[in-house]
Amino acid sequence: MDKQAAKDRFIKEFDQLVKELQEILTNYKMPQEAIDWFTKSLDYNTPGGKLNRGLSVIDTYAILKGTTSDKLGDEEYKKAALLGWCIELLQAYFLVADDMMDASKTRRGQPCWYLVEGVGNIAINDSFMLEGAIYILLKKHFRQDKYYVDLLDLFHEVTFQTELGQLLDLVTADEEHVDLDKFSLEKHSFIVTFKTAYYSFYLPVALSMFMVGVSSEEDLKQARDILIPLGEYFQIQDDFLDCFGTPEQIGKIGTDIKDNKCSWVVNKALNKVNQAQRKLLDENYGKKDDESEQRVKDLFKELEIEKDYYQYEESIVSELKQKIDQVDESRGFKKEVLTSFLGKVYKRSK
Amino acid sequence: MDKQAAKDRFIKEFDQLVKELQEILTNYKMPQEAIDWFTKSLDYNTPGGKLNRGLSVIDTYAILKGTTSDKLGDEEYKKAALLGWCIELLQAYFLVADDMMDASKTRRGQPCWYLVEGVGNIAINDSFMLEGAIYILLKKHFRQDKYYVDLLDLFHEVTFQTELGQLLDLVTADEEHVDLDKFSLEKHSFIVTFKTAYYSFYLPVALSMFMVGVSSEEDLKQARDILIPLGEYFQIQDDFLDCFGTPEQIGKIGTDIKDNKCSWVVNKALNKVNQAQRKLLDENYGKKDDESEQRVKDLFKELEIEKDYYQYEESIVSELKQKIDQVDESRGFKKEVLTSFLGKVYKRSK
Repeated sequence: MDKQAAKDRFIKEFDQLVKELQEILTNYKMPQEAIDWFTKSLDYNTPGGKLNRGLSVIDTYAILKGTTSDKLGDEEYKKAALLGWCIELLQAYFLVADDMMDASKTRRGQPCWYLVEGVGNIAINDSFMLEGAIYILLKKHFRQDKYYVDLLDLFHEVTFQTELGQLLDLVTADEEHVDLDKFSLEKHSFIVTFKTAYYSFYLPVALSMFMVGVSSEEDLKQARDILIPLGEYFQIQDDFLDCFGTPEQIGKIGTDIKDNKCSWVVNKALNKVNQAQRKLLDENYGKKDDESEQRVKDLFKELEIEKDYYQYEESIVSELKQKIDQVDESRGFKKEVLTSFLGKVYKRSK
Repeated sequence: MDKQAAKDRFIKEFDQLVKELQEILTNYKMPQEAIDWFTKSLDYNTPGGKLNRGLSVIDTYAILKGTTSDKLGDEEYKKAALLGWCIELLQAYFLVADDMMDASKTRRGQPCWYLVEGVGNIAINDSFMLEGAIYILLKKHFRQDKYYVDLLDLFHEVTFQTELGQLLDLVTADEEHVDLDKFSLEKHSFIVTFKTAYYSFYLPVALSMFMVGVSSEEDLKQARDILIPLGEYFQIQDDFLDCFGTPEQIGKIGTDIKDNKCSWVVNKALNKVNQAQRKLLDENYGKKDDESEQRVKDLFKELEIEKDYYQYEESIVSELKQKIDQVDESRGFKKEVLTSFLGKVYKRSK
């Protein structure tokens, strides 16, 4: 099955899942206006992204089962897809809130949910309900499975880790008070590990592992030890592209410099600047005007951050390949799960 | 032990629990500033209320064990108190967000968390973390217990129910667009049942029941069938006092009329008004000035809503007493749990 067909099949499962959630509200005898509101929030905020996280649950499950996703039985496909949608719901929960906290204007090419007519701060409760939907669906479909409690623990753990990453990001990169002393590569590593890597890379794989039954602590650790640095690499690449990628390449205009983001690029620069260059950064980073942004970009060029990035990329990719090579497959875990993830990330920047 | 001593002992457990949460963040190697921020949010938002919900877990547990809370062993006291604090954390999670959605100014005699210097919209992520703390603590203290998964299911279910109640409240009583046609006693009953009764009345009792092991579906249903209408009565009383209570009596100045709240009082009035009185309500309810508020209050007097309230109270209390009388204690559940709750609510208005 080609990529688009796989995506279409996955999206069909979402329609089913919305119906199930509506049914729950109907059983609670909720008035129609509340059901309509929740439906609109689910539809507006959950699909519409690249769905990589959700799809990778199905792909990983198939690899661990020694098959491909198009050959999965209907029941196991539906269950894996449901776990995938639970990650997409988790992401929707974060993004609705992040957009409010960052005062963002658009998301996935449409106005942020809180900016939609009539929504406003109700979006906070809507984000809560997107998270709540995860546990309703898990209970409905997995309550009888012996790993149900493991799924709950995993979602709780990863949710809290992501919130910790968001907290650290918020207290580090205050848009109102630019203070580059707060930045460091170490802190950047923390933020991206917690805010992105756990839920985007470790979570989909761990969920599939529980479903397949290859979920000893050793195997989960093997997965984590590679997927977390891989997730960090993914975000560093994202930071790099925000600054050095063309709009055609990345599908948006990068705003990290203007937004005072604690990006890998500025942290790398901070490690290399002399006094005069540091002064330039202090005076121009996080400013909203194009001239300041250009001055910062010119400095990044001068400092050859681009070269640093390609060096980093070479070294992390070879390190990850080595680690994958050493993975112990004796209990049923498979290197292929990890090479497949690495392939998706490495290709992306080429 | 007197009431204040019981409260003091309970609060001591909170200090311990904050230490445990700090330790979790330390183990994640979180920077000190993130730990400090989370600690401040926990301290600011969790204690400081009446703590009735938390304390009632301990009281209910003691009743079901046939003893009093001061005679509980140290270990079981700590576990029951932890469940109590989890309800208080759940409430903190809701209140931090509700205050933002209602644009409230103060809470428990201090500025709302989002209005504290430097907090702002970060409060959204802080509310997420207050909820997240519940599951960290439950895992640490109950993972080995056979009812652990029941605790998780219960918290998820009640959290979602409360969010549904909040959603219905928000779409019904829009402060910007006053429309009394949206109100009805039936909708009021829904809102208060979901937004308040489940987490404030059913949750503490159900948690204790799981801990004691008196938790068959029949017994949970017996508890629910009485605690949900009791919670509704509690909220109707709250609505009544907001309008008819003196500031000395209720410890604050009621603002439901000015805030366009879908209160029991206005719903009762809407059922009795003639055309002219309805016009007066349409023109004055939800207006921010004192004159409009006074006109509404005078109309409520004229309509004798006070009398309706006392009639309602008589009838619900006698109905609840009858129901309690019929409770089947054969599997270990006890009427005393319910009479104790009813006593606390009934006394409150006297």
